[in-house]
Amino acid sequence: MRAGYIRRAAPGVYTWLPLGLKVLRRVEEIVREEMDAIGGQELSFPALLPREPYEATNRWTEYGDNLFRLTDRKGADMLLGPTHEEMFTLAVKDMFSSYKELPLTLYQIQTKYRDEARPRAGLLRGREFIMKDSYSFDVDDAGLEAAYQRHREAYVRIFDRLGFDYVVVYADSGAMGGSASEEFLAVSPIGEDTFVRCEASGYAANVEAVVVPQAAPVAADVVAATPAAHVEDTPDSPTIETLVAQSDAMHPRADGRAWTAADTLKNVVVMLTHPDGTKEPLAIGLPGDREVDVKRLEAQVSPAEWEPFSEKDFEAFPMLVKGYIGPRSLGLESSSKIRYLLDPSVAEGSAWVTGADEHGKHVYDLVLGRDFSADGTIQAAEIREGDPSPDGAGPLTLARGIEMGHIFQLGRKYAEALDLKVLDENGKLVTVTMGSYGIGVSRAVAAVAESTHDELGLVWPRNLAPADVHVVATGKDQAVFDHAERMVADLEAAGLSVVFDDRPKVSPGVKFKDAELLGVPTIVVVGKGLEQGSVEIKDRATGERREVPVERGVAEVLTEVRGARPAPADPA
Amino acid sequence: MRAGYIRRAAPGVYTWLPLGLKVLRRVEEIVREEMDAIGGQELSFPALLPREPYEATNRWTEYGDNLFRLTDRKGADMLLGPTHEEMFTLAVKDMFSSYKELPLTLYQIQTKYRDEARPRAGLLRGREFIMKDSYSFDVDDAGLEAAYQRHREAYVRIFDRLGFDYVVVYADSGAMGGSASEEFLAVSPIGEDTFVRCEASGYAANVEAVVVPQAAPVAADVVAATPAAHVEDTPDSPTIETLVAQSDAMHPRADGRAWTAADTLKNVVVMLTHPDGTKEPLAIGLPGDREVDVKRLEAQVSPAEWEPFSEKDFEAFPMLVKGYIGPRSLGLESSSKIRYLLDPSVAEGSAWVTGADEHGKHVYDLVLGRDFSADGTIQAAEIREGDPSPDGAGPLTLARGIEMGHIFQLGRKYAEALDLKVLDENGKLVTVTMGSYGIGVSRAVAAVAESTHDELGLVWPRNLAPADVHVVATGKDQAVFDHAERMVADLEAAGLSVVFDDRPKVSPGVKFKDAELLGVPTIVVVGKGLEQGSVEIKDRATGERREVPVERGVAEVLTEVRGARPAPADPA
Repeated sequence: MRAGYIRRAAPGVYTWLPLGLKVLRRVEEIVREEMDAIGGQELSFPALLPREPYEATNRWTEYGDNLFRLTDRKGADMLLGPTHEEMFTLAVKDMFSSYKELPLTLYQIQTKYRDEARPRAGLLRGREFIMKDSYSFDVDDAGLEAAYQRHREAYVRIFDRLGFDYVVVYADSGAMGGSASEEFLAVSPIGEDTFVRCEASGYAANVEAVVVPQAAPVAADVVAATPAAHVEDTPDSPTIETLVAQSDAMHPRADGRAWTAADTLKNVVVMLTHPDGTKEPLAIGLPGDREVDVKRLEAQVSPAEWEPFSEKDFEAFPMLVKGYIGPRSLGLESSSKIRYLLDPSVAEGSAWVTGADEHGKHVYDLVLGRDFSADGTIQAAEIREGDPSPDGAGPLTLARGIEMGHIFQLGRKYAEALDLKVLDENGKLVTVTMGSYGIGVSRAVAAVAESTHDELGLVWPRNLAPADVHVVATGKDQAVFDHAERMVADLEAAGLSVVFDDRPKVSPGVKFKDAELLGVPTIVVVGKGLEQGSVEIKDRATGERREVPVERGVAEVLTEVRGARPAPADPA
Repeated sequence: MRAGYIRRAAPGVYTWLPLGLKVLRRVEEIVREEMDAIGGQELSFPALLPREPYEATNRWTEYGDNLFRLTDRKGADMLLGPTHEEMFTLAVKDMFSSYKELPLTLYQIQTKYRDEARPRAGLLRGREFIMKDSYSFDVDDAGLEAAYQRHREAYVRIFDRLGFDYVVVYADSGAMGGSASEEFLAVSPIGEDTFVRCEASGYAANVEAVVVPQAAPVAADVVAATPAAHVEDTPDSPTIETLVAQSDAMHPRADGRAWTAADTLKNVVVMLTHPDGTKEPLAIGLPGDREVDVKRLEAQVSPAEWEPFSEKDFEAFPMLVKGYIGPRSLGLESSSKIRYLLDPSVAEGSAWVTGADEHGKHVYDLVLGRDFSADGTIQAAEIREGDPSPDGAGPLTLARGIEMGHIFQLGRKYAEALDLKVLDENGKLVTVTMGSYGIGVSRAVAAVAESTHDELGLVWPRNLAPADVHVVATGKDQAVFDHAERMVADLEAAGLSVVFDDRPKVSPGVKFKDAELLGVPTIVVVGKGLEQGSVEIKDRATGERREVPVERGVAEVLTEVRGARPAPADPA
């Protein structure tokens, strides 16, 4: 914003000023070229859409507050498209009817709308933003897999050309439905996504997509040797920390080891709200040394949303004793059943210290499978640096990234909901299978800026820069301005795009700072050196500057920009 | 739609399919080039906008039902931009502060939204559409005039390049405010706009903008010789026709001539609704041989809207006797005053037959200025073929057109409302003056299609065509398809864009018809002639077809497309 690339119009809604628009168009062009190269056909759906198709797939409701809804003058419900699966599916349904017309890849580079609860970080999470979205249409799974691979390769080329550090991770497909799914993340400390990597195997996944393997059952003899469950007094120990301290003091372990948080089973209850508005309590059991990861939980319960249990919720479920909730109030023994899911690290046969459903009491040696059971598992516990990789290859490291692209095998969800079928080779109607592939185009501009800027301002890579050269004329000497103007004309005649700072009465220092802020790769200063017959050429990225003879100025700039040596100058 | 260029998503909302999008991009590129050539800087405002700026200029209200309004999740009022004067004005206010930074021209090619009451004719009047809108910013009127002329010249170049028959007409500036204003209309019988032209002088105007000159006063001696007004029985004559018939039968003219409708003064009452919801009756007096022109009236009362007087309205104004309304119930003599405006053809001193405000009675020899008066004039009567040109040069002809561009000198309306001022040469704050310039970009695609198509389908001019060549492979012979495919590859390698119809099992007739429907300028048929060593090249526009030797096929097509003779073929 400070460099005049964009301007805020409303929360999460931005104007593209001339320099910003040029960068945006360059990103679009890269995306377009690579999509065309894999046979994508570009089209453009409206942003203003009727309700009906989104009703058919239930997303009119599922999108909740994230959807911008409006009513037209005739009272018809409409929406601003957050994504266009429905429209693509219906268009293909309308236009194609035979397997012979497939495979097919359609894409658009288009403005989308999501009423984000917390628009943030400028273009990174806006409410009006530009995406490339494409869809592949195939008659069978092999076709989908091939289309997915073609897109994956195109995405690698696109992100290589955009030139930021990125990683491809397994992803959760979230509210979109579907199966195989990968994300392209720009590695950045300001990213909203956390991802894990295993150096040994190359495994990488969005934290929401990490599937912690089910712990192996405890050996039968160990279970047999475990004492019967016994309830003990643990006054004033509603937290894991107080429980561990209390246990060491009042109920030391038989083997003499100290109790740790990992020996306790924490039971967290949350209230889900389903898209249709119905509420459902959910209990999650996990080792006391782990927290529930908000995003992993979100991904697991989606499209439902969750909230912590409120005082009112506790009143409605009186068997839940806050701070002392135990599996037995949740599991088989409960009268009003609450769905109870365990972290996969809780092994069959393992013994736990956990709530006894009575104020000031915990139960010890409670064994899964012997003393309590659950309704299944849930991947909601936090993943920590050093956790084993799900593929068993070594420890995980954690980092943050910005989601730049998402590819996934959508399958037949939308085709089924909207009845997209074609005739196969045998003249039989088959449901089409789809892939869905997105790139955050406006977000990419911000991601590149984030990954390339320095403390002085923006530093554009040459292929995305809003101009090739930034010419600065300094001082009060009219000859300087005249020469700079001729130089700009020559550079433009040679096909370069130029930003020309010819502001009168602005100090050289301010102009240099502005040039650094704007981040055009090559800066030319026409100033006091002109009398001695030289101009300065500066590389914005490295800060390298050199004086060149005036008569070689244009040729030297062309060299920089085109990355080739200039022809030797005529002796003059 | 039939040719697969666009697809309807909702009333007035269209998807651009691949072929349509290509044409749209070509139009955009022409507009962009010409805007850049006059120093325009491109930016892009959001479509989703906050209410406040539109509140400041009163357009949040004035736009009425035409504005798509919505509320975000936090309850903030937002709108989909129908036009962006406010946003441009505020951006310039934010970024510039001195006369030295002006003149300035900013433009965008952007998606706009208007909730039209009657979206029609596909892209011609849509609810989501693409416009180029630009604004010029100057410190003085001379600057605005120069910016206006630059735009006018750029528009002439743009519409020349788009290649349809157009006319530049004086326009009414409507709800936009401002003064000097011209429209570029594509001449077309399906156009919504009616315009007039005077061949003798070249005068041309949108019918809303025609200013009929005030008729000269009747000579004093003629007025003096006019008998005093006299009320006569005219039973059952509530219409002009019945009145004229009655008058001839019962009240023949002294000079023996027959009465005509032009001798009567018709008083039409309408009810206005102002943007703030208040209602106001308005009476219009015009010669009985003319109707009120709905669009001229609309333009005159804007931003108010009008409706015919209802039965209820008549009840509320009992002095108005339906069918017999006279100036005396409207003018000075009335107790509850209704604003009364006269057509400018009604001359001071002229005598009329008009309503006597009593059922079955009319008044004769009622003289304007002697017996009745009005509150002013209104340009609301229909303009007819043969009417004198306002410049006095000769008769007018009428035709219909599609509004393609609109340029006008907006002046200081928005700058004042939003307080856009800069420091002038003397360090004094002055309000900036603005010009506003629009082109219907998506509409242009439809207008070109309208003006160039024939009974077989679309006929694109070469510079807008979605492809250079349409290659059709026909028959069942694999050699035909192989040869056609090689030819397509060669043409593409030479830099041409090609539509290739290689559908198996589709009859040649269907393929030829489809090629004509699609309208690509050059059609190449590879078919049964191949055995004899020839392919057919067809010009879509003229229908001319010629067989050329297979080995010269690519070269001949390149000639057609590039408009140059090919190099002589090597003897083979």
